[in-house]
Amino acid sequence: MPESPEPSLAEQPDSLPGNSVGLVKPQVFEFEEPLELSCGRSLDKYELIVETYGELNDTKSNAVLICHALSGNHHAAGYHSTNDTKAGWWDDYIGPGKPIDTNHFYVVSLNNLGGCDGSTGPRSVNPATDQPWGKNFPPLRIRDWVHSQARLADKLGIEQWAAVIGGSLGGMNAMRWALEYPERVRHCVVIASATRLTAQNIAFNELARRAIRGDAQFFDGDFMEQDTIPREGLALARMIGHVTYLSDELMGLRFGRELRSGSFQRGLEAPVEFQVESYLRHQGDRFAESFDANTYLLMTKILDYFDLAREYDNNLVQAFSQAQCKFLVVSFSSDWRFSPARSTEIVDALVAANRDVAYTEVDSAMGHDAFLLPNPRYESIFRTYMQGIARKSVNARSQP
Amino acid sequence: MPESPEPSLAEQPDSLPGNSVGLVKPQVFEFEEPLELSCGRSLDKYELIVETYGELNDTKSNAVLICHALSGNHHAAGYHSTNDTKAGWWDDYIGPGKPIDTNHFYVVSLNNLGGCDGSTGPRSVNPATDQPWGKNFPPLRIRDWVHSQARLADKLGIEQWAAVIGGSLGGMNAMRWALEYPERVRHCVVIASATRLTAQNIAFNELARRAIRGDAQFFDGDFMEQDTIPREGLALARMIGHVTYLSDELMGLRFGRELRSGSFQRGLEAPVEFQVESYLRHQGDRFAESFDANTYLLMTKILDYFDLAREYDNNLVQAFSQAQCKFLVVSFSSDWRFSPARSTEIVDALVAANRDVAYTEVDSAMGHDAFLLPNPRYESIFRTYMQGIARKSVNARSQP
Repeated sequence: MPESPEPSLAEQPDSLPGNSVGLVKPQVFEFEEPLELSCGRSLDKYELIVETYGELNDTKSNAVLICHALSGNHHAAGYHSTNDTKAGWWDDYIGPGKPIDTNHFYVVSLNNLGGCDGSTGPRSVNPATDQPWGKNFPPLRIRDWVHSQARLADKLGIEQWAAVIGGSLGGMNAMRWALEYPERVRHCVVIASATRLTAQNIAFNELARRAIRGDAQFFDGDFMEQDTIPREGLALARMIGHVTYLSDELMGLRFGRELRSGSFQRGLEAPVEFQVESYLRHQGDRFAESFDANTYLLMTKILDYFDLAREYDNNLVQAFSQAQCKFLVVSFSSDWRFSPARSTEIVDALVAANRDVAYTEVDSAMGHDAFLLPNPRYESIFRTYMQGIARKSVNARSQP
Repeated sequence: MPESPEPSLAEQPDSLPGNSVGLVKPQVFEFEEPLELSCGRSLDKYELIVETYGELNDTKSNAVLICHALSGNHHAAGYHSTNDTKAGWWDDYIGPGKPIDTNHFYVVSLNNLGGCDGSTGPRSVNPATDQPWGKNFPPLRIRDWVHSQARLADKLGIEQWAAVIGGSLGGMNAMRWALEYPERVRHCVVIASATRLTAQNIAFNELARRAIRGDAQFFDGDFMEQDTIPREGLALARMIGHVTYLSDELMGLRFGRELRSGSFQRGLEAPVEFQVESYLRHQGDRFAESFDANTYLLMTKILDYFDLAREYDNNLVQAFSQAQCKFLVVSFSSDWRFSPARSTEIVDALVAANRDVAYTEVDSAMGHDAFLLPNPRYESIFRTYMQGIARKSVNARSQP
């Protein structure tokens, strides 16, 4: 429970890639002051688990906040041990010489409130009952995340973020920052996101929730008390998400109609299985072992409820008129969950609100997942924009 | 078990719409000769439940076969009783004066083998065990349906169909007819279909199957013996299908982000629900009460396995070179499960094979479901094509 951040960058062994932030160690921050939530309840105290990469400069003007998406967490870059086979979820974009360059920026990445990777959430103990919160964890809104993140910034001594950056749900988080604390954000980077979900998006989330709730091991959310997890439901929920995050084209390229084994020979009665089926099952099963079902329900409801303009007379232009920062908006051509049309809605409203915005639609076959994956054009645009921020960030605190 | 069809058109009461085929009564046909299946097994005997509309002419040249889609059945038009609130699933397109005009055509519509609405399928008794087939019903291919339908045609005295017509899975069935029995099909109408599924399509089917198999009440397919049904899983499977059959645009138009009840007021902890969520649940729950889970698994596997060109060196042109009939191919602009691109693959191969084909992409916001729904342009194209067949069908038997 450090009050000020300890360096979380440990010594980097030879075995890790040279352009990685190397070994990192998460830190847990405790917050003892009650947090009033949008639902009307409050959390008396809570913890946030955080990773930081790079060094905060003397003027504290080079801090960047990373906002994660539905199934993300604080581990955005680097490795937790030399045995790790996988780096953090955005390691392609955060590190020395990468678009979010840790030679220039002090990068802060946390697991959001309500998460299941170390921050206070349904798996945590409710101090009032000494039992895990489980399904009784308060419903959250993205605004609540922003407020908790602002307190984290306070603890870190960061008055103003050089940039708040997020993809998908994280992009919603970043936009909300720009409206809630206009003076604390210099740049807002919104990737593969939207100001609110479409009915189709809500429908897919409802399918995922129904998969979880329909699992007999869910026990109406009280599965922890029963010492079990709704493994099947959670796996299916993830599979539903996964299919929709990929594009039809990508799935065709990656799997085609390849069979996993066997063939169509006559007499064969064992179920013939396509590669895409076993891939999805593997993804779903792996996810089910680590993610919390109540967190999944909580997070998808946060997604569904989010509507950036609701408190601004449902007028996006009026909403964005609150912002003082500059914006970079990025979309991907084959993303049909958060399509380019959703991004141009953001851009049009920003332009109408007379805000400074750069926009690009990146050509990609990767669907919604594109925001996580290597792509030369995306990297180049992202890098150029971040370099512009870095050049100005030394003396930037007074230039919103 | 009539050997020849009885008139299935009962007296039409005043209360039913005037342009309806009126009251209809399904007939069950029994087949005692074993049917060799693609899987190498055979069915010693089987039944098909059938509805017919209109009158077979003297030259038996005006018969049209309707092939149903995944959740369809024999009840394509008319009403089963004057209390019916809903007509058959394609009543907008089959009836006097409608595109498939029963004043001209003798329309045959059956529940496919493996179905759950009266034809032999998983719910039927396996004569070898005196128990329901359940999960042990043989895996089928569309070719097996075509062979069983050919025997039905024999019983009805129909040597050659004026047209074989189907949407989606039914379109695959119709195309297979044109290759299996080229001399028995004069016209093939393929609507919102494809020569094989994409990896994304297979993935969605796998999600639906996993939903069913993951239901604790599925009992590895033996739910009948347990006197239960996998209601939750089947409902979720249907919901997954349903979301993908609609377009994003249609869902936005129909549901927007309307809330079912309540609002976002502070303090509200009951789960706020969007209209689209309750709609989907209702659709899923209703389906789960009537459809058989083993049939759903069987049918989706038939869809996945289907590959029109597999036995023709994976060459669609070579495949369609077998056909002797003329083709009408129709797609819908917002259909992303069986997109217009899938239909143009069919058309391009037909043209390369020097077959006679008419094609149109109909502008519609209705997604894949468009093939079932009223649409002036679709109706007009369909009607015109069918009128062309009707004009020639009186003496048509010798003119393939």
